[in-house]
Amino acid sequence: MSRTAADVHAARAYLLRVAEPPAPGLAALVASVGPIEAAERVRRRAVGGAAHDETQARHGVERAIEDLRAAELLGARLLIPEDDEWPAWPFAAYATAADDDLVEPLALWVRGSASLAELAESAVAVVGTRAATGYGSYLARQLGFELADRGFTVVSGAALGIDGAAHRGALDAEQPTVAVLACGVDRSYPAGHDGLLSRIAETGLVVSEYPPGAVPARHRFLIRNRIIAGLAAGTVVVEAGLRSGARRTASDAMGLGRPVMAVPGPVISAQSAGCHALVRDCGALLVTRAAEVAEAVGRIGVDLAEPLSRTDARETDELDRTSMLVHGALPLRATRTTFRLSVDAGVPVERVRAALPELERRGLVEQSDGAWRRRRASA
Amino acid sequence: MSRTAADVHAARAYLLRVAEPPAPGLAALVASVGPIEAAERVRRRAVGGAAHDETQARHGVERAIEDLRAAELLGARLLIPEDDEWPAWPFAAYATAADDDLVEPLALWVRGSASLAELAESAVAVVGTRAATGYGSYLARQLGFELADRGFTVVSGAALGIDGAAHRGALDAEQPTVAVLACGVDRSYPAGHDGLLSRIAETGLVVSEYPPGAVPARHRFLIRNRIIAGLAAGTVVVEAGLRSGARRTASDAMGLGRPVMAVPGPVISAQSAGCHALVRDCGALLVTRAAEVAEAVGRIGVDLAEPLSRTDARETDELDRTSMLVHGALPLRATRTTFRLSVDAGVPVERVRAALPELERRGLVEQSDGAWRRRRASA
Repeated sequence: MSRTAADVHAARAYLLRVAEPPAPGLAALVASVGPIEAAERVRRRAVGGAAHDETQARHGVERAIEDLRAAELLGARLLIPEDDEWPAWPFAAYATAADDDLVEPLALWVRGSASLAELAESAVAVVGTRAATGYGSYLARQLGFELADRGFTVVSGAALGIDGAAHRGALDAEQPTVAVLACGVDRSYPAGHDGLLSRIAETGLVVSEYPPGAVPARHRFLIRNRIIAGLAAGTVVVEAGLRSGARRTASDAMGLGRPVMAVPGPVISAQSAGCHALVRDCGALLVTRAAEVAEAVGRIGVDLAEPLSRTDARETDELDRTSMLVHGALPLRATRTTFRLSVDAGVPVERVRAALPELERRGLVEQSDGAWRRRRASA
Repeated sequence: MSRTAADVHAARAYLLRVAEPPAPGLAALVASVGPIEAAERVRRRAVGGAAHDETQARHGVERAIEDLRAAELLGARLLIPEDDEWPAWPFAAYATAADDDLVEPLALWVRGSASLAELAESAVAVVGTRAATGYGSYLARQLGFELADRGFTVVSGAALGIDGAAHRGALDAEQPTVAVLACGVDRSYPAGHDGLLSRIAETGLVVSEYPPGAVPARHRFLIRNRIIAGLAAGTVVVEAGLRSGARRTASDAMGLGRPVMAVPGPVISAQSAGCHALVRDCGALLVTRAAEVAEAVGRIGVDLAEPLSRTDARETDELDRTSMLVHGALPLRATRTTFRLSVDAGVPVERVRAALPELERRGLVEQSDGAWRRRRASA
């Protein structure tokens, strides 16, 4: 790494430590004067306004070198906007978001060797409640599998419940998946997902804006969600209670102009109430399968969902109204003259006579001694 | 009944017989010259255009007197637009519908002594598949009960499955309900609903535009649906396969400018697929409970649904961002100085000092030897 590149990494590592994300004032300063100069000014307390407040408490925390070393020991690294691997295109949405909290991260600690920019080229967030039901866990895993199988990177938060199931589904499809944490990438949180996080890092990425060793905190789970939403072309909520954090991810995705989707479930399930509220109150798209998700986020002309097949199609489906009336007026076990059919169906007799040959050709009616009867539908 | 009134009844009874509904041409003729003159012209074959075709096959079917007598014997009667009891206001929507099939019925055979106009003043259609699941049947009955209990008349088609459950729910609430049949009001169809239809007729109404003795036919089930939709201020589909007839009722309701609602269910259930398609593709409103249905169809200011209560509300919900950061940085089992809190939370120390008293007042933190710890949330 060149001297300058190392300086930029060190400056951004320092900046990630000295302000609790999201820090819009500091982000604006970095955008204006660059990371090295911004770091210098923060150190010298030569900043005003929001950036001053955001950095006042921690400006003396000089841990950049230790953080970078700790990451290296873990096989992790600091990804910065100056890198080719930075997901610059998906993250461009932060610049136009109206919400102050929707700030592009200053840098990201990543564990794993995949390219974040490549994985984010075609990514879908699949998120939901930790308190998932069997129904939700099944669907999240299935959705994770099918989206990964279609070439989408599944992005989620590695939490218990829906998040974990979505990651596992992607791994089932032997595709990389991205987990965004609310703590350092060296921590296994939740503890039960230690093995899952290691598997994710093997082919995909474990990502966080919090430095190595950082502990999760409630507000960090919420703030972290903006990165899940930002990496993905759309966000699907599989199951969520009325106040699940997954709704924050959905809200962030809307703030970033990305489609939000929700999977419905039984209305008697509290774990689906948040999904139903998203559809009812927030304009989320109701989705029932991977093809519909792909259609909402995917490439036009490539990912159009096939209509669900009507497995119970009937042979009379394509009949015009007159033929349907005539066919409907024919009993199964008796014959009818065309005159009687005309009366029963309410169709002029010449139209009955015109309709019968086509019905016969389709095998729906048959003649018998100059009268007509309905044929049983074939199997 | 005056001579003229009897003539009008006889004319309309004749007109219901001589054309298979819906007969837009005949309806236009009746609207133009009145029912008595229209009946005369049909008899004399002095009609042209669509009305000619619609009545050609059956113009000789002179059964009006017999039909009226048969109805009388059953305790049924012919309700006509000239009656006060005609639901003129709800049916006015047919006049502005673009779909040719959405024609106001020429008259209705009714069984039961209630007033259709009164019952239709505040009515909701609750419909769905005959092949209902336990989930759907339970919800339909519950919805029928709750809507009836709120003063809405439940209108449905008396079919097996969802329709029957909705009627039963209304009867559970000891409220009148309206069943619209695709056969004569003297027939028990389906056979298993003989008792249900009798119970409906005791306090509510069994309604049909088909004369006594008329048999159900496939197209009649579809055509009948426009009357269910027309009587109701809105239509709820509880469960429907992708090609359930209930979707036709929904389509008719949309054609009449009435709100269409659908209850979601498990995405792995074929019986909910039609409901999900209505929400996804047709702009139906997703509803999960009677209050939401009432809000969609109800009187403004009277039927606004209370938001679902968040039973899992947390004590920290109303905190501002700074207080939440401070609270989140406090461990449960150790104390922190304000300076350390400032660093951990990333909040200037004077703001930490300003936030703590309010957190203490709320019982969320406590002091100990000049430092602070988090208090466990009370139950």
